Amino acid sequence: MMTALDLPGNASSVHNEGRAARSAVDRARRQVATLVGAEPTHVTFTSGATEAANHVLTPNFRMGKSPLAVSRLYVSAVEHPAVREGGRFAADQVSEVAVTPAGIIDLGALEAMLQAHDRSQGLPMVAVMLVNNETGILQPVADAARITHAHGGLMICDVTQAVGRMPVDIAALDADFLFFSSHKIGGPKGVGALVSRGEVLMPAPLIRGGGQEKGHRSGTENFYSVVGFGAAAEFAATAITERNEAIAALRDHLEREMRLAAADVVIHGADVARAPNTSFFTLPGLKAETGQIAFDIEGVSLSAGSACSSGKVGESYVLTAMGQDPKTGALRISLGPETTGDDIARVIAAFARIAGRRKLADTAA
Amino acid sequence: MMTALDLPGNASSVHNEGRAARSAVDRARRQVATLVGAEPTHVTFTSGATEAANHVLTPNFRMGKSPLAVSRLYVSAVEHPAVREGGRFAADQVSEVAVTPAGIIDLGALEAMLQAHDRSQGLPMVAVMLVNNETGILQPVADAARITHAHGGLMICDVTQAVGRMPVDIAALDADFLFFSSHKIGGPKGVGALVSRGEVLMPAPLIRGGGQEKGHRSGTENFYSVVGFGAAAEFAATAITERNEAIAALRDHLEREMRLAAADVVIHGADVARAPNTSFFTLPGLKAETGQIAFDIEGVSLSAGSACSSGKVGESYVLTAMGQDPKTGALRISLGPETTGDDIARVIAAFARIAGRRKLADTAA
Repeated sequence: MMTALDLPGNASSVHNEGRAARSAVDRARRQVATLVGAEPTHVTFTSGATEAANHVLTPNFRMGKSPLAVSRLYVSAVEHPAVREGGRFAADQVSEVAVTPAGIIDLGALEAMLQAHDRSQGLPMVAVMLVNNETGILQPVADAARITHAHGGLMICDVTQAVGRMPVDIAALDADFLFFSSHKIGGPKGVGALVSRGEVLMPAPLIRGGGQEKGHRSGTENFYSVVGFGAAAEFAATAITERNEAIAALRDHLEREMRLAAADVVIHGADVARAPNTSFFTLPGLKAETGQIAFDIEGVSLSAGSACSSGKVGESYVLTAMGQDPKTGALRISLGPETTGDDIARVIAAFARIAGRRKLADTAA
Repeated sequence: MMTALDLPGNASSVHNEGRAARSAVDRARRQVATLVGAEPTHVTFTSGATEAANHVLTPNFRMGKSPLAVSRLYVSAVEHPAVREGGRFAADQVSEVAVTPAGIIDLGALEAMLQAHDRSQGLPMVAVMLVNNETGILQPVADAARITHAHGGLMICDVTQAVGRMPVDIAALDADFLFFSSHKIGGPKGVGALVSRGEVLMPAPLIRGGGQEKGHRSGTENFYSVVGFGAAAEFAATAITERNEAIAALRDHLEREMRLAAADVVIHGADVARAPNTSFFTLPGLKAETGQIAFDIEGVSLSAGSACSSGKVGESYVLTAMGQDPKTGALRISLGPETTGDDIARVIAAFARIAGRRKLADTAA
């Protein structure tokens, strides 16, 4: 990005400066495509995963030049709000697919819903995330895609929490579209990508104007951020197994110590496949808000649920979807490639102190 | 921005890191608001002017919690494509208002169109830019707003090319909404703002999800870019008259020398009020594409029309709207606060050489 800051050009201008900028954007497009096993020409840069979700979740598709209608969106009950809100679908065109108590989409329920779908009104669209943003739990996307395609539907996969944490391949997932944001892989905020399997079947543009991104997404390219996104994508694709095994080892050590410090701690998703970087837990008797402040005082920044709406500590819709009491407070610890053993030791010490105080308060009450 | 790069937080998280980021975003919001005489709470950050245009140009408004329908969009014939495309209006809901041969919106035509508007279907919306992106010509926005409001309509003003080049005040323009992008005032690409006069009457969100920007624009805030945008806005609001008088003096000198070097040069908008930074000219017998390449070889980067769609050198719709032959090739020289007398001397020399060669070619042919 620092190198890019010295390139003054507009990537859509034809002059010399513009050409240098365009070549940097092309490189970023290849880097982003490589991260998810896609063709560079199938990458549309957006302002982030949320815009990409609003772009692709639409009843209005085109197959080449012909309009193609999508009449209903089926979303797993644990999708990110950017997907659960349904993008450009009307509220009554969106159906939720239940998850099991383990937090995994109920594929039988999906199959039944698609069987009942009336294709005379338009195709079904199914959105299932690869890794849940609160729990880190993996979803069986390829299985959901098989069912979706058997019913002539489109498969959309939010891989925001998965890229950089496990190999992601659009063909292996059998998804028609996937999307993610740059800042979750260490790139700058404010940029992301919608990646398509092909280029014939495409959603109607969300943002129209100057015709950038082959007309799929207008607006002057977010040049510096796109370059940073590309570099982050290249890093995220490198030594992915080794890096994530190290992160998983730290996370597993953390969770063992948490159980030793508080035998009653509930670690959500501990028994199913999870991304290596997430630990989402409930300490009985500790509210999420209280816990978050307590950790903040200890110098540890944790999230309560997802950090999407302004400073709000809400109930976890993911735990609710998993059949738990909506009042259950849960906190999320996120690890990254820069997390050290010392960081984890500090979190363990803070956790032990907070869990200990909670017991004292319980006894005193 | 460099300082902001050291702040790790997500502006919507409640922990310490998040608070530091939020305070930096709040500061940027004040800086951007100040530039256009608005309230900080009336600034919605977007990914740029194009997204802001697509956000506000919609039939679906809300007055508080009640829906409010807008049934037709009237745009001047010289608006940027991001506006002329009509955002979320259907193509048959958009009408173009003609401009005079001088390139200024025909207010009589606007008045007649609004008189004929059927308000039983919804309100009219009028979009007139303050400064044209190709010619730099100023539009009578406050007059258009008076006519629009007399017919109960909403006034939208694209001030992308005006901010930093002249004082801009949302109340003086009498606009209900205005929008602009950061990179036109020296800030980073990929960020912009939709600014409203109040906060009761608002467009339905374009991008839904986590509920950032008070629910008006979801997606993780483009933190570093927002901070850079704020700094650029503060600079753009400073010493605006002095800075732009200096730029206008350079531009006027350039145009005098261009006329001396080629008596037949046509400088578009030279006889009406223009932004100080733009010179849009036609050299008879020189095609825009050829001219752009010739200047590029001389080390001068010029635009042919606007630089919005990928490397495309199209016909100028602005000159067409002004009643000129669509084949007229025109080139745009843009000056900025960093343009020096030496730069201008270099452009004049290149211009003289190119104009001279053109004459030789004409004679030879």
